[in-house]
Amino acid sequence: MKAKREALASLFTAINGGKVDEDIIDLLLLINSIKGIYTTSSCSGRIGIIEEPALGAKPLSRWLIKVHRLIEFEEAKEALKNAKEGIIFLKSQPPIFHVVAGDLEKAKKLHELGLASGFKYTTFKVISKRYLVEINATEYLTAPLGRDGKVLVDDEYIRFAIEIGNEMLRRSKRRLSRLEENFRKLRKELGKDELFYEMAEKHGISVR
Amino acid sequence: MKAKREALASLFTAINGGKVDEDIIDLLLLINSIKGIYTTSSCSGRIGIIEEPALGAKPLSRWLIKVHRLIEFEEAKEALKNAKEGIIFLKSQPPIFHVVAGDLEKAKKLHELGLASGFKYTTFKVISKRYLVEINATEYLTAPLGRDGKVLVDDEYIRFAIEIGNEMLRRSKRRLSRLEENFRKLRKELGKDELFYEMAEKHGISVR
Repeated sequence: MKAKREALASLFTAINGGKVDEDIIDLLLLINSIKGIYTTSSCSGRIGIIEEPALGAKPLSRWLIKVHRLIEFEEAKEALKNAKEGIIFLKSQPPIFHVVAGDLEKAKKLHELGLASGFKYTTFKVISKRYLVEINATEYLTAPLGRDGKVLVDDEYIRFAIEIGNEMLRRSKRRLSRLEENFRKLRKELGKDELFYEMAEKHGISVR
Repeated sequence: MKAKREALASLFTAINGGKVDEDIIDLLLLINSIKGIYTTSSCSGRIGIIEEPALGAKPLSRWLIKVHRLIEFEEAKEALKNAKEGIIFLKSQPPIFHVVAGDLEKAKKLHELGLASGFKYTTFKVISKRYLVEINATEYLTAPLGRDGKVLVDDEYIRFAIEIGNEMLRRSKRRLSRLEENFRKLRKELGKDELFYEMAEKHGISVR
């Protein structure tokens, strides 16, 4: 699978460059070690404050702070000092995995696996001949805090919204271990991919 | 298609009982008139205030107010007086259509149609042998307003959050005409379903 070879090269380079969320590195390696599937963009879940200059103009958005762990009130308040333009949102997003499957059969297995692991918003798309499964959850927070540099809520509200956002992130991250367990089972079923182990070694990535 | 027959009966009964969002009735009739596809649960988009007793316990949530048009500040404030227990959220959600396709070919066409109409979060699932396409957009607002009966924001914030939520709803609803146009083209391509016209007549539903 040429596409998998390229995807693996990207992944290993990113891991070596410290660009992959630490708490999902092992899971990403596990998924990619399975024959017939591989990951593309994935995220371990995050919470942060973002400015959106025009609603919907996503490319122009800028994060004032973004973390892949629970966020602290103090750092959020500090980040808000940099708000300039656009609508300010506190956003909390669950872990999300994009997995490419070589055929419909595998795509369906991945879809069921995501749902069985508690990722209730798992779906897929067919792009040309590829099946892209998105393993996603429902815990999204999108709370407006102000606009054009002005924060329209008090500290008590910021603490409250952060508490909700952190709780959502905690809940969705808790399911990562179930996801890992289910991918281990899938690997027993579909088998290991030799290409993965060869390339991991070449890139100096230690795998279990 | 036995399943389509049942789905149509449900739809026509719901329309006659005033249970279908008025601004999408014509679109739903159009989609169902196409051979090989039919809709299940769909919503024209909504904004409202909901209480969630425990994060994630969706079945126990209760809406304090829910409208399929833009919401007014006064009615939102009035509804907040009934808040009792759980986290209070202002939620804005775009129109969402669930369309069942008889085969992968049609599911892919529907998927492309949704994306081409600006519904960037269009995906699908395979459930037993059926393909369920979800035509969905990205404009979701989930703003916490308080908890356990206590509103933790002032009127200025409520007005602000409502303004953002309404703007999101306005933007996503604007795409309904593009969606309709694309479904008309699809109907020219796939053809009309005689069963739909027969049953519409039996149920006293006038169709164009």
